[in-house]
Amino acid sequence: MKKLINNMDDVLTESLRGFEAACGDVVRLHREPVFLSRVAPAPEGKVALVSGGGSGHEPLHGGFVGRGMLDAACPGQVFTSPTPDQMLAAAQAVDRGAGTLFIVKNYSGDVMNFEMAAEMYEGTSATVLTNDDVAVEDSTYTTGRRGVAGTLVVEKVVGAAAEAGADLEACRALGVRVNERTASMGVALTSCTVPEAGRPTFDIDDDQVEMGVGIHGEPGRKRLPMASADGIASQLVEPILNDLSPAAGDRALLLVNGFGATPLMELTLMYDAARRAMASSGVVVVRSLVGNYVTSLDMAGCSITLSMMDDDTLSLWDAPVHTAALRWGC
Amino acid sequence: MKKLINNMDDVLTESLRGFEAACGDVVRLHREPVFLSRVAPAPEGKVALVSGGGSGHEPLHGGFVGRGMLDAACPGQVFTSPTPDQMLAAAQAVDRGAGTLFIVKNYSGDVMNFEMAAEMYEGTSATVLTNDDVAVEDSTYTTGRRGVAGTLVVEKVVGAAAEAGADLEACRALGVRVNERTASMGVALTSCTVPEAGRPTFDIDDDQVEMGVGIHGEPGRKRLPMASADGIASQLVEPILNDLSPAAGDRALLLVNGFGATPLMELTLMYDAARRAMASSGVVVVRSLVGNYVTSLDMAGCSITLSMMDDDTLSLWDAPVHTAALRWGC
Repeated sequence: MKKLINNMDDVLTESLRGFEAACGDVVRLHREPVFLSRVAPAPEGKVALVSGGGSGHEPLHGGFVGRGMLDAACPGQVFTSPTPDQMLAAAQAVDRGAGTLFIVKNYSGDVMNFEMAAEMYEGTSATVLTNDDVAVEDSTYTTGRRGVAGTLVVEKVVGAAAEAGADLEACRALGVRVNERTASMGVALTSCTVPEAGRPTFDIDDDQVEMGVGIHGEPGRKRLPMASADGIASQLVEPILNDLSPAAGDRALLLVNGFGATPLMELTLMYDAARRAMASSGVVVVRSLVGNYVTSLDMAGCSITLSMMDDDTLSLWDAPVHTAALRWGC
Repeated sequence: MKKLINNMDDVLTESLRGFEAACGDVVRLHREPVFLSRVAPAPEGKVALVSGGGSGHEPLHGGFVGRGMLDAACPGQVFTSPTPDQMLAAAQAVDRGAGTLFIVKNYSGDVMNFEMAAEMYEGTSATVLTNDDVAVEDSTYTTGRRGVAGTLVVEKVVGAAAEAGADLEACRALGVRVNERTASMGVALTSCTVPEAGRPTFDIDDDQVEMGVGIHGEPGRKRLPMASADGIASQLVEPILNDLSPAAGDRALLLVNGFGATPLMELTLMYDAARRAMASSGVVVVRSLVGNYVTSLDMAGCSITLSMMDDDTLSLWDAPVHTAALRWGC
């Protein structure tokens, strides 16, 4: 294993310290317990959005902290849920008297810990669970579907609504609606390597791909022979369309998300392939995003996410956002 | 070799088509010859900035086309110079009557082809060569030092000056000045694999790194045993500081650039290490950038770039930019 690290115990601390130092115009790092919050606090009366999860998926979630998106994010150790005290401290720090919405990817550890934090929290809170991964029902760390790259869309759209003054229940209902209209599936060409483990999470032959892989290297639907970009795109897009059942003419955001070790050149090529794979559905792609947003350390591969849009969610997607990883309109 | 591609001959075409489709709000793809230009042309009287080079370094240069940065970019095949007819067509398309500045990374093929394009071009032109890589004098594809990630800083700063109305000579002189004050050095943990070649560009042991590697996998200064992030950062920062000879209190932009396959978590950790490695120099880091900006396909590793700043270049760096890969202030 070759990684740019010092001591294993300091990986998260040093990485977060570097992130804060490099992006200090946007995020502030809190210690004991560890969480990230906006440098410029939101105004009183805004619903606070708090997310979090295991590290190793950067820029998710810390890269999405800032105006128009999250108020705070709680990073756990690599692929490990943050603890309830992190979530509680984050919620208390960013509470602006309008309640806190926890946005939680559906993994058992995250769900349990966010539930405990919500119970300890004295303010009003609600929770949105994301479970956009159509690859498998139940998985290594989940009951039910996994929350993956579609979480970005939920955080962006609900973040804009909160910024515009939506109340806690409206934010929660919007998050549920966006999640229901969002579907993702991924493919791995290589495994990731967790620093503490020191070896690849799974073995995969040079001529195989893991179709439907999870963002921690969890098994997907099946191990298949390596195929062309078009072949892979078709196999990812079909289950997504089956899940969403869009009508011809329906509008969507298309996200092609790299897992960390796939060149941008291949990601834009996969975007091209995905567009062709979904052409016969009649879905109109009205917004796009291509890049490394919800990663799996150094895994090679990508996921495709389709999020069905309407006038309301489109205008929220377009609303200004000022975070380390997404920035437009301000 | 596992890559998300279809036919080898179509890699560039499909990748560029996907890029245009995903980022159609910013860039337009031209064919025969191939180049990328801004969707919204610059106003008459603005100096046009045209860059280009081999593909495989995305988002450089196409991702830097847009308001506040480049007017056009010419992508060659992977790690291969674009041709003079691409450069000529790009210059003609974006000419606004104030001359064209070619920004060229110092590689023999690029230099020769941009020279030919400049000769064929009927408008007024000037050229800035970037050669920020302090690792080696002369290299596989260069006479003199290589142009690497510092090119981004030149394109951003000069792009802002052109947008603000600087004339061709002022833009050229500024580009030369920024390049002279910018120094970079990189390290590879793994090789890249050029699709057409089908195998890694170089072999490297599991316990070694290539210190001073080029962005095409060219040899660096030496092959060293794998070291800690701090150890590697020190070895990258020292030659950079030796080259720039900054005084204590001098201001700089610090860019930690991923080569394509290194997780963001490691890049922010390397940023933290770089800050410590340069602490004793007294240089004040006033701006920062961490991410995959000037890549080498799927190479694991990173480069560190230091660009000395003054009031003038700082305000140009901060000026609004609206490209696929860099976006702020608008």
